[in-house]
Amino acid sequence: MFRYQYKGENMKIIEGTIVSPIGFSAAGIHSGIKKTKKDLALIYCDIPASTAIATTTNIVKAAPILWCEKAMAASGKKQAVVINSGNANACTGAQGEVDTYTMASIISDELDIDKNDVLVSSTGVIGVNLDMNVVKPGLKNICSKLEKNVQAGIDASEAILTTDTKTKTLTLELEIDGERVILSGMAKGSGMIHPNMATMLSFITTDLDIEPSILKELLLEITDSTYNMVSVDGDTSTNDMVCVMASGMANNDCITEKNEAYNKFKEAFYYLNEYLAKEIILDGEGATKLLECCVHHASTKKDASILAKSVITSNLVKTAFFGEDANWGRILCSLGYSGGKFDPTKVKLSFISDAGEITLLQDGMPIQFDEEKALEILKESVIKIDINLHDGSESATAFGCDLSYEYVKINGEYRT
Amino acid sequence: MFRYQYKGENMKIIEGTIVSPIGFSAAGIHSGIKKTKKDLALIYCDIPASTAIATTTNIVKAAPILWCEKAMAASGKKQAVVINSGNANACTGAQGEVDTYTMASIISDELDIDKNDVLVSSTGVIGVNLDMNVVKPGLKNICSKLEKNVQAGIDASEAILTTDTKTKTLTLELEIDGERVILSGMAKGSGMIHPNMATMLSFITTDLDIEPSILKELLLEITDSTYNMVSVDGDTSTNDMVCVMASGMANNDCITEKNEAYNKFKEAFYYLNEYLAKEIILDGEGATKLLECCVHHASTKKDASILAKSVITSNLVKTAFFGEDANWGRILCSLGYSGGKFDPTKVKLSFISDAGEITLLQDGMPIQFDEEKALEILKESVIKIDINLHDGSESATAFGCDLSYEYVKINGEYRT
Repeated sequence: MFRYQYKGENMKIIEGTIVSPIGFSAAGIHSGIKKTKKDLALIYCDIPASTAIATTTNIVKAAPILWCEKAMAASGKKQAVVINSGNANACTGAQGEVDTYTMASIISDELDIDKNDVLVSSTGVIGVNLDMNVVKPGLKNICSKLEKNVQAGIDASEAILTTDTKTKTLTLELEIDGERVILSGMAKGSGMIHPNMATMLSFITTDLDIEPSILKELLLEITDSTYNMVSVDGDTSTNDMVCVMASGMANNDCITEKNEAYNKFKEAFYYLNEYLAKEIILDGEGATKLLECCVHHASTKKDASILAKSVITSNLVKTAFFGEDANWGRILCSLGYSGGKFDPTKVKLSFISDAGEITLLQDGMPIQFDEEKALEILKESVIKIDINLHDGSESATAFGCDLSYEYVKINGEYRT
Repeated sequence: MFRYQYKGENMKIIEGTIVSPIGFSAAGIHSGIKKTKKDLALIYCDIPASTAIATTTNIVKAAPILWCEKAMAASGKKQAVVINSGNANACTGAQGEVDTYTMASIISDELDIDKNDVLVSSTGVIGVNLDMNVVKPGLKNICSKLEKNVQAGIDASEAILTTDTKTKTLTLELEIDGERVILSGMAKGSGMIHPNMATMLSFITTDLDIEPSILKELLLEITDSTYNMVSVDGDTSTNDMVCVMASGMANNDCITEKNEAYNKFKEAFYYLNEYLAKEIILDGEGATKLLECCVHHASTKKDASILAKSVITSNLVKTAFFGEDANWGRILCSLGYSGGKFDPTKVKLSFISDAGEITLLQDGMPIQFDEEKALEILKESVIKIDINLHDGSESATAFGCDLSYEYVKINGEYRT
């Protein structure tokens, strides 16, 4: 399966969890929302941390999303994030909002921090109110379990999962202003068995010192080119959220503008989030291949982005890759109806994988290619669809997966 | 399976083909583009007929689409349409355009009509040039086979098919100005086995007397609410075309404005095209159910249309219907990320089929419903997803199908 090999010099991958950056502790427990698996996670920072979030663009927003947006508007510093899995607290009306408020209040009371400094995130069943008789004691319990050791981080990363088959985490180390800076992320992906939806959650901690406003800009920029360029099936959930907390305890000079230190951290931050986004795809139900569509030499960034996404979300393209079929026609077609601008007579299309590279289209026209070679390339589990528009200097990359029998099976099963 | 029952009084369904309207003849033959099946169809009108076309919005347009757009710009009257199946003449460069021109020229010479009065349509393999050694004699041959009998119409309707499992036709009769007016249509649908794509073609003949400019307005309006509201998998082909030819030989007063006669014809024309669009879906590869999503009481027509289409194109919704799962959450979610405007707290959602009706959401909140009853409703092959937004007076209906194992199997198969 897919393993991302980092080849840069400015950072290194280390063993670690979200408690590795200085200042953070965590916990993950079973409270009773789920039958037996862990269902409650808590991340805590010793001091109010610069925090930024990116939330779902879906009009139908779950109660915890509404709470987080309100809390972030009040202040860019947060001290705790509590996450429950097993119930999304979405489409739960006024009672759902009351329950989210209660969750934040309990954490606030137990940890003696400001209510507005507590973020709440939920994933799981929608349309069912939380059983607060289970959640309330669970919240009190988890506050007493906060630890700074590795196991605490692992527990938390397990507690946010729904139908994911594995945890998705990465920890990086880099040097800024001569200080060691750690950043670590944990994510959950696209569990879509009813009544769950494809909720994508990602929580990142770092001990970098950075202004909340700059952190927000960074998060939105990175989200646009990672999580927002990911498609398992094109659906956006009511509960999607990415959250980053920076304790500032690494002792670098506080980043207040887009300077050299910012760019160095950005590179690592991008790498971490791209990694987590790809891991989410590969754990997508029924996915057998990671598809990476890179559209380059486009006239605008927006066109490149629209075109790359259109390829990656086309069911005809996705099934062709599942079938290991070098189907350039479907790719060209998906570019054509995307709404993105390009000149069909200039398109060059190639497939690249560990087994090699093959060009299928040149100047928008099919060229003779070795079918055996194409099949070898398509048999790999990570495939790059490389599209040169010869039309400018902008580029964008979208990530997706194939469409398999398994996807239909998992998502078509009647609720039992 | 689905049978559309017309309950109106202004028209009746009759036995017939595209040669039923006065003035039309047709032929369908095997020329050799395909191995054994019919692959060449011709529709001819004794006099230049008022003609309108709607063509694909894909940027990548096949050579025959470019030809038709140019010919229509030259004049709104046409006398012949030649259609080949087995080769789409798409992504075939300058040679493709030469071949289309040659096709129009041969028909023009053989039938002694103006070259610009000949439309050309192609469907099938893309990226491969037509074998003109086969096509040229085929075109001469078919011109000598034109007939006004039923079999000629049937032959033509068979010759336009690719991977369709059956012909899709309908003939209607109505009275305008005391005169009998016939309209008849034949369509091909969503054959998507590589290297074909989901090309949708529809050809309608009528003996109505109507100005080309009014006919064009009518076609575009009807196309927007029928073919453009249909989704098998969201992809738009390089060769899509709908064409209507009106001979004017029914002897009604020529329709030059949107009067009563226009509205009467419009009703029948809408009925015919909606019928063909639904037949295309039901013959869609792997489709087991027809889904009809009606969004009503929306604030604008555009929002209603965006919302209805989003529901019908969501893979999560499509797989849920395949699994006969009353999954209101996925529907609400697909409305939420569509970009269409609505108030989530006002939504009422019901499923309707021959087995009855059931409401799942009221005021945007799930309500208790009888799971057994829901399953009975979802077991039917035609299901209406009824969405009341309580937000205005506009409405739109989109048509789609479920997503089955069979879809993945057919579209994932390696080319052999």
